Amino acid sequence: MSSWEANVRQVVPYTPGEQPQEQNIIKLNTNENPYPPAPAVQDMLKCLSPNALRKYPDPAAGKLVKALADRYDVGPEQIFVGVGSDDVLAMAFQTFFNSDLPVLFPDITYSFYDVWADAFRIPYQQIPLTDSFEIRAEDYRIPNGGIIFPNPNAPTGIALSKEAIRSILQANQDVVVIVDEAYVDFGAETVIPLTEEYDNLLVVQTYSKSRSMAGARIGFAIGSEKLISCLQAFKYSFNSYTMSDAAINLGAAALSDETYFQDTCRKIIETREDAKKRFAELGFSFGDSKANFIFVKHERVPAKMIFNALRERHIYVRYFDKPRIDNYLRITIGTREEMEALYAALEEILK
Amino acid sequence: MSSWEANVRQVVPYTPGEQPQEQNIIKLNTNENPYPPAPAVQDMLKCLSPNALRKYPDPAAGKLVKALADRYDVGPEQIFVGVGSDDVLAMAFQTFFNSDLPVLFPDITYSFYDVWADAFRIPYQQIPLTDSFEIRAEDYRIPNGGIIFPNPNAPTGIALSKEAIRSILQANQDVVVIVDEAYVDFGAETVIPLTEEYDNLLVVQTYSKSRSMAGARIGFAIGSEKLISCLQAFKYSFNSYTMSDAAINLGAAALSDETYFQDTCRKIIETREDAKKRFAELGFSFGDSKANFIFVKHERVPAKMIFNALRERHIYVRYFDKPRIDNYLRITIGTREEMEALYAALEEILK
Repeated sequence: MSSWEANVRQVVPYTPGEQPQEQNIIKLNTNENPYPPAPAVQDMLKCLSPNALRKYPDPAAGKLVKALADRYDVGPEQIFVGVGSDDVLAMAFQTFFNSDLPVLFPDITYSFYDVWADAFRIPYQQIPLTDSFEIRAEDYRIPNGGIIFPNPNAPTGIALSKEAIRSILQANQDVVVIVDEAYVDFGAETVIPLTEEYDNLLVVQTYSKSRSMAGARIGFAIGSEKLISCLQAFKYSFNSYTMSDAAINLGAAALSDETYFQDTCRKIIETREDAKKRFAELGFSFGDSKANFIFVKHERVPAKMIFNALRERHIYVRYFDKPRIDNYLRITIGTREEMEALYAALEEILK
Repeated sequence: MSSWEANVRQVVPYTPGEQPQEQNIIKLNTNENPYPPAPAVQDMLKCLSPNALRKYPDPAAGKLVKALADRYDVGPEQIFVGVGSDDVLAMAFQTFFNSDLPVLFPDITYSFYDVWADAFRIPYQQIPLTDSFEIRAEDYRIPNGGIIFPNPNAPTGIALSKEAIRSILQANQDVVVIVDEAYVDFGAETVIPLTEEYDNLLVVQTYSKSRSMAGARIGFAIGSEKLISCLQAFKYSFNSYTMSDAAINLGAAALSDETYFQDTCRKIIETREDAKKRFAELGFSFGDSKANFIFVKHERVPAKMIFNALRERHIYVRYFDKPRIDNYLRITIGTREEMEALYAALEEILK
């Protein structure tokens, strides 16, 4: 070992879902949207200017922030934008979770939370979901240094009601509570309106799922002006220009077509509700997903075996080799055609 | 103060150079390139696909990494890419500077180094430049936890020779040495070849200056496979998908036209050398800049006064209100036409 290695930070790297480069696969493993971005985004793609590329982007990403403020009916000073919601969440961890008390999150949840807590040396405690994989609001009434959970939760897809979240907020006004709404547009209820009542509530959303723009890397947070100004100060302290000119313009354009957005979400919700029937017929059990994926377990065949058999047929789903969930598959809702191909493959595999 | 504020991280935000939104200004304040990106980048802009936008980008940014490896004649495993060189540098600080000994950098240098060291709680010691604003290699032979400097240095523009950098490396093989080559393409000599001899040398470059792509947010580092794998591990621990699909494709396209790149750099170098004559005639003194800016001081008129007078004439340059340099202006090299307008304005102001 070279001597300089003694001072290198040791981390356990996170393994993202596979992004196979082959064509002709059915990709139901990373919760991408099967439909293209709004036509306004496609038009904006054609208008991106080489001259704008030459200059630094607006560090405040003003155009994108204004469009988000208008869409979500809050002030621009209540909005923070970042390079995907991972960037926003990682900054929020570093900005808000500096207590000696543990940050609380579910034991089965987005797999980056414990990775960030470890990377940033933040103490944490994982609160077990119930046997039916639900978050129980009462469990979040112990001393803590902050709370974070996705709603709907990932990879279960199960949502909490606004009133359950309110009860968590009511019991935790001395710490920052982050609700990660990456999948909220597929049928759960957003708690953005609660940011008016609770100045310690940060709601995080992303363009990667409901807005079909994972490739653009755009995430955002909405909260009180106070919370947002803390995030801004931290962000500006290490990279003033995180949002590219393309991201700013494409992100603003995406918000101009509410009808397209609602239609896309509705199609995915319909396909998901249909999938619930089909999966039940195939012998799978699952919670009541409100996301663009379903977390399923088969009555007879082990998840790992189904995972491999699907892969051989060029259908990619997600398998997590982790305690409590190692017999489950997380299956993204694709187009109707992709789902039909999936059901056909499953029938073959399970017969 | 709300009680949750007790655990919020306190930072002093960095103030980036102004990005005035008005048209018809001459912008010589943030070292942008006055020429557009390569025609291949402009073509690629037209080819960006809405369908690619829908999916997560390749987390390894393979296409961009391969293009960089080919261009700089190193292996792909020796390349790390990020959201501008600020992202790369901030990650390098966190990955490599974990000693109790201070990290060394010049007292007059890129203004983010001390901001990052403070933000990440890294001890540091600023080594004074000589009276003529030069880095003296011998000053970097004291116990330390790492070394970083830009070459050419910013905001002075003065470059170190490869042999001087080699002597710093020779004396510091137990720590990571980062050479920030943001401006190297304008006439200094890169030390990328030295990464073959020193596995503790990290060279950082950017697309924001010589490649006219500040708006795309692309930076990269070249070093030994060992150094790069440490950076990768840290990066993947908090955001797997930092490089957008647009950045990956535009960044790769930029490298396909070496002639355009060399021509653009040559034009800026010629304009800079001409500017040295013109500034001298106007009564300014300055070091021998090898960057796309010149750091000037007037024999008679205070810098702040010139700064304000230029601003009134819609010409933006950069003024730093800091010890030792508060009577200097950093002036970016623009097009010949922009520079002529600057000289005319200066003649008027200084007469």
